[in-house]
Amino acid sequence: MDLLKEYRDRRSAQNKKVIDNADKVVKRIFSLDTITFHDGALDAKTKEMIGLTTSLVLRCDDCVKYHLEKCVEVGYTKEQIIEGMAVGNVVGGTIVIPHLRRAVEYLEALFDEKENA
Amino acid sequence: MDLLKEYRDRRSAQNKKVIDNADKVVKRIFSLDTITFHDGALDAKTKEMIGLTTSLVLRCDDCVKYHLEKCVEVGYTKEQIIEGMAVGNVVGGTIVIPHLRRAVEYLEALFDEKENA
Amino acid sequence: MDLLKEYRDRRSAQNKKVIDNADKVVKRIFSLDTITFHDGALDAKTKEMIGLTTSLVLRCDDCVKYHLEKCVEVGYTKEQIIEGMAVGNVVGGTIVIPHLRRAVEYLEALFDEKENA
Amino acid sequence: MDLLKEYRDRRSAQNKKVIDNADKVVKRIFSLDTITFHDGALDAKTKEMIGLTTSLVLRCDDCVKYHLEKCVEVGYTKEQIIEGMAVGNVVGGTIVIPHLRRAVEYLEALFDEKENA
Amino acid sequence: MDLLKEYRDRRSAQNKKVIDNADKVVKRIFSLDTITFHDGALDAKTKEMIGLTTSLVLRCDDCVKYHLEKCVEVGYTKEQIIEGMAVGNVVGGTIVIPHLRRAVEYLEALFDEKENA
Amino acid sequence: MDLLKEYRDRRSAQNKKVIDNADKVVKRIFSLDTITFHDGALDAKTKEMIGLTTSLVLRCDDCVKYHLEKCVEVGYTKEQIIEGMAVGNVVGGTIVIPHLRRAVEYLEALFDEKENA
Repeated sequence: MDLLKEYRDRRSAQNKKVIDNADKVVKRIFSLDTITFHDGALDAKTKEMIGLTTSLVLRCDDCVKYHLEKCVEVGYTKEQIIEGMAVGNVVGGTIVIPHLRRAVEYLEALFDEKENA
Repeated sequence: MDLLKEYRDRRSAQNKKVIDNADKVVKRIFSLDTITFHDGALDAKTKEMIGLTTSLVLRCDDCVKYHLEKCVEVGYTKEQIIEGMAVGNVVGGTIVIPHLRRAVEYLEALFDEKENA
Repeated sequence: MDLLKEYRDRRSAQNKKVIDNADKVVKRIFSLDTITFHDGALDAKTKEMIGLTTSLVLRCDDCVKYHLEKCVEVGYTKEQIIEGMAVGNVVGGTIVIPHLRRAVEYLEALFDEKENA
Repeated sequence: MDLLKEYRDRRSAQNKKVIDNADKVVKRIFSLDTITFHDGALDAKTKEMIGLTTSLVLRCDDCVKYHLEKCVEVGYTKEQIIEGMAVGNVVGGTIVIPHLRRAVEYLEALFDEKENA
Repeated sequence: MDLLKEYRDRRSAQNKKVIDNADKVVKRIFSLDTITFHDGALDAKTKEMIGLTTSLVLRCDDCVKYHLEKCVEVGYTKEQIIEGMAVGNVVGGTIVIPHLRRAVEYLEALFDEKENA
Repeated sequence: MDLLKEYRDRRSAQNKKVIDNADKVVKRIFSLDTITFHDGALDAKTKEMIGLTTSLVLRCDDCVKYHLEKCVEVGYTKEQIIEGMAVGNVVGGTIVIPHLRRAVEYLEALFDEKENA
């Protein structure tokens, strides 16, 4: 089945449940997450790369997928994303490799979608 | 397929294999895990909330499911469980969000089951 | 030197530097941290225990010290705090022991201070 | 479906994508990973056990599966592998249990395959 | 005592001991670490920011200090570094705060040194 | 001051406080920790190496020191211990390096003590 669609549909269905049940703290976390990636002294594009690579070393596949989407959106090339993740892989070690595998698979699907758009 | 049944059946089948193959150390870990959540100076109910929230920040989905079952059993409301997990989400950061998503989905299924019992 | 004073002075001096240099995101994290531990569906006292035990399993000594102070403040006994941390120790394993050691040392100092107040 | 085949096919398909897209840093990580498990002052067999148990405490299921294959290959018995993982379980705590469950399931499949070869 | 000097002297003395005792695998890790932060499709400056923020979320104080030195060297302003670390703090949660405190203290010392050079 | 003595004295003083305050769960964790490293299907010597390397990748300096003492006691050479830790460094990434630095420093002190005994 479609890798991109599976993630996007599941994420959006689950997010709806979280929002429906959220207390004020959870709501604040969600709104904080949004303002975190705005332009400031550091540009939004670099912040997206930080979002991706910190998610990778913390080995959160769903977070990685989310930030891969964002990194493609803000204009990183496939080569740049791979090199950014390679830094994370050195920092985080070979236990990051299975997450890199899933990330590259998702990244390829994202660029396929983009080229066929 | 049924979210609750999938987890319960898989956990119980896999636990059987672990017990069948366990050395004395693994057996002790299992028995330690059981006595940990008894009433003492601190009540068992609070201990279950600790079990849930420490599992959440350590991002172990199966552990979270297990402790969600226990938290519902000992009488926490859905709102209380959400607020407990919200504390964990602040402490553990946005990388906890995908685990919170799966937890809320499971929690809703647990309360649906309870209401239809 | 005094264990309590060393932590409190360092924390407060360092916090001043963080606040002086904070962007709006860091400010929000600090204010979020504060509202997280308010009474709600779940009482503030239980939330402090969650703050302590999640910090312990994530092995953050300074966070543990902070929440030990809070747990004593909101009225937990020494025995209750030990039992709460014991749950965290089972969940997080023997690598938590060095953090438990430092926590118990700090906890004893806190109760000494309280009794001599 | 077949547990061993699912892992092996997925790993090999995903590894191909990683290699196709790898920059020089990722390539070096892969080659470093290979030379790490050679005989030296410490024998290769003990190094495989280290690979397995460090992967287990870091809770990386795919890494665990990979090192289970290797540990069976270099001649560890099922009992030895279980005892090695039990050490990891004590060090890493009960949050390791769900990973132990999946590991034991995979290990049984590996020994079934071996006996039927 | 001098914060910068303490870290630099200790790191350099300890690194000497590691190199003196290193097997070929440790040597390769050290050389890999060096080539990781070179210009490529992604510029070296962005890679240094990734090095800093991934170290922060993994809560390694010495790694953070090392990358703070590098980030100042490659020309990031104090405000940019704070904003980068703020992203890490959202991703990694409030357990990152004690590490952020130590990082900001070190960062101030670095900029003091630079202004007095 | 003496690196070995500092660790040993602090550990033993703090352990006394933990034992004085321990509930039955903490006591069980301590006794479980002891039986874990006994001979079984897997020899005690290999188990000590697992104790060391899992502690290293989980980045617990005090646990690493404890297991370094044990590994020297059971007869590993300095070269073997370095190679074992090198495996952990590959698995756990460059964030393990500061812990490796402290470990090698401690290991040298242990072998100095042994040679001068």
